[in-house]
Amino acid sequence: MERKRCEIICVGTELLLGDVLNTNAQYLARGLSELGLDLFVQTVVGDNEARMESAVRSAMERAEILLFTGGLGPTADDLTKEVVARCFGRKLLIDAQALEEIRSFYTLTRRPMPISNEKQALLPEGGIILKNPQGTAPGCVLFSDRGHTAVLMPGPPREMRPMFDREVVPFLRQFSSGTLLSRVVRVISLGESRMAEMLSDLMDEGVNPTLAPYAKDGEAMVRVTARADSREAALALTEPVIREIRQRLGRHVYGVDVNSLEEVIAGLLAESGLKASFLEAGSGGLAACRMQAADGASGVCGASLSAPDLSGLAPLLGIPRLLPENPADACAFLSRESGRQLDALVRAVIWQNGTQYACAVTVEGETRQYVQSMPSRGLDYYRTAAVQACFDMMRLMLLDRLDAKKQK
Amino acid sequence: MERKRCEIICVGTELLLGDVLNTNAQYLARGLSELGLDLFVQTVVGDNEARMESAVRSAMERAEILLFTGGLGPTADDLTKEVVARCFGRKLLIDAQALEEIRSFYTLTRRPMPISNEKQALLPEGGIILKNPQGTAPGCVLFSDRGHTAVLMPGPPREMRPMFDREVVPFLRQFSSGTLLSRVVRVISLGESRMAEMLSDLMDEGVNPTLAPYAKDGEAMVRVTARADSREAALALTEPVIREIRQRLGRHVYGVDVNSLEEVIAGLLAESGLKASFLEAGSGGLAACRMQAADGASGVCGASLSAPDLSGLAPLLGIPRLLPENPADACAFLSRESGRQLDALVRAVIWQNGTQYACAVTVEGETRQYVQSMPSRGLDYYRTAAVQACFDMMRLMLLDRLDAKKQK
Repeated sequence: MERKRCEIICVGTELLLGDVLNTNAQYLARGLSELGLDLFVQTVVGDNEARMESAVRSAMERAEILLFTGGLGPTADDLTKEVVARCFGRKLLIDAQALEEIRSFYTLTRRPMPISNEKQALLPEGGIILKNPQGTAPGCVLFSDRGHTAVLMPGPPREMRPMFDREVVPFLRQFSSGTLLSRVVRVISLGESRMAEMLSDLMDEGVNPTLAPYAKDGEAMVRVTARADSREAALALTEPVIREIRQRLGRHVYGVDVNSLEEVIAGLLAESGLKASFLEAGSGGLAACRMQAADGASGVCGASLSAPDLSGLAPLLGIPRLLPENPADACAFLSRESGRQLDALVRAVIWQNGTQYACAVTVEGETRQYVQSMPSRGLDYYRTAAVQACFDMMRLMLLDRLDAKKQK
Repeated sequence: MERKRCEIICVGTELLLGDVLNTNAQYLARGLSELGLDLFVQTVVGDNEARMESAVRSAMERAEILLFTGGLGPTADDLTKEVVARCFGRKLLIDAQALEEIRSFYTLTRRPMPISNEKQALLPEGGIILKNPQGTAPGCVLFSDRGHTAVLMPGPPREMRPMFDREVVPFLRQFSSGTLLSRVVRVISLGESRMAEMLSDLMDEGVNPTLAPYAKDGEAMVRVTARADSREAALALTEPVIREIRQRLGRHVYGVDVNSLEEVIAGLLAESGLKASFLEAGSGGLAACRMQAADGASGVCGASLSAPDLSGLAPLLGIPRLLPENPADACAFLSRESGRQLDALVRAVIWQNGTQYACAVTVEGETRQYVQSMPSRGLDYYRTAAVQACFDMMRLMLLDRLDAKKQK
């Protein structure tokens, strides 16, 4: 069977005013991807008849399956069903059962049914009704003579999501050829473009799976996407490519399909039977905050401290205010000396001030330190960079320690 | 001047796969709305040359101003500049200054510059470069012979947002007829629907200004938007409405056009000549992290501590591990007793565990405490709720103290 092309059209002036974040588009995109259906264009139009019609007719030139959200409500500016039915050459007829269900909602809630709600029981001829257990606007599926399928769903995510999951996904499965599986290789301390350079032949040659590089929050990542008849077959296609990426990027790869760097560190700490404390000057306690939010972190976190500068940390640790002048040395000094007051055997110290940061990590008596200058960006960038560098140092030290134990 | 029509085109296969939520579209839509510019269509296309070109050519038929996000990176699948330049009939030329800025980024961070990054210094002939203080990919503006303007911005929101705010908004103002001024009244400890109820007549009657309620991150807010010939005239239209909202919501209004609750608290601390420390168990140090990131906070923050539970905080404060059993009492005890080790006169203690939280704040010897149960949501929700409650308690205590001083 030839592969069908899909488009998503989200209808709603509130989206064009920026009053509402379009989470429906992402939800549907992910659903289509999991079904192995191709999505090439996604459009937002307002509650305007002419512009909506133009968007529908354009989409019909490019795709066979059109998914709509929004514009199914009872008010005069809800026009999706009317416009799509016209483009598809279908009449709208009152559906007795749909009308009954809308009526029974009002009976149940002991409110009179506004006349305008009758509009919601209109169904395109030859169409299929999609039940809405979460609201009064039912969805529907309709077909054109030229082989198009349109799926109309309500706009509120609370109504759209269960309708898509329960009614639309099973319906769309007939068009799906196989599964699309995406896996994400997470990379640290290596820029996106340098990473892409190191993988360029894989990216150029990659057809199934395909490779795509990304950058986000001080990290790089590469997505490996395979298409196959089953999830297992798709997984098997990705395996050798992910092995090759790991081989080339080495320890810069901190995980595959993991949630975060801190989650990986929490796992290493648990495996090592160690707890970590963070002492932060200038980074606002961000490292401790991220660490304590990671899955499985509650058992591996000791007490952590933060203050605007390093001298603010010292008194609570029973350390004299006089610290080494060089920030990296001061970090190393604090990470070593704080062992007298903190029971954690892994202690990290971060200092961030403008475009400069330094960090030091002590793991069971061994201390490493690092200092870096950054380009002029902004506080979020500086703090994230400092925390990422500290996390990576801690990760590598824990890995070294575990490797050394294994070799013994 | 005739009103220009805008379109937004977001480029990125990650958006079509549903891997990334398209927050850029909302951010730009809101920005255009505030400029009083009309947005009728918003499109997403993948990193595919032919489909991107088709989307650009369609948009050129419908609108004069096209805003793009994404596809400006250094890798081979970043194609936006190439495609838009071709549709606009413009050549791409290396811009010496842009190249220099990208090079200096790599010099500063002591890394070799990958050749692919030179691509980022390509600028369409006759175009304007848009600086990117947050990354290496600059944006640009280009013009077609048929009167179109295209604005190309990077995809990561951290880079796109400051570029739009600082460079694009001032540029677009020339196309805007009149001014749309939005002011935001920030509200705490009052739900969005209850707030909307208290303002319902103002929202129903409001034409210029209009009122729109929102909820975000454990707060409610109401946006007041006026359209007028000048900023001053628009401001004058909003004044009586904002006065009325303040009157009705009282101390629930913590600020108008402020960045955050913590910024307001930093201001109150500075006005009071006091410093604050946070002791957090379970909330991951989020309160200290937010506070230390606020503008003007560095002078008003003392050292702060976080640990997974209250007993982990006590030893560093020279307090015996035996704390009152009731969490709210334990918080109050810690906030009072920690004065021996911490020099801050304002001390807040937060305990969060599952759907429960407690907090206590001590301001110069006076202590208040609070305990609350939450509906089942998730860790982010719980932590945010606990921190917001603690911040609001601190804010009210500081306000009371300043009021009392003024009355003397």
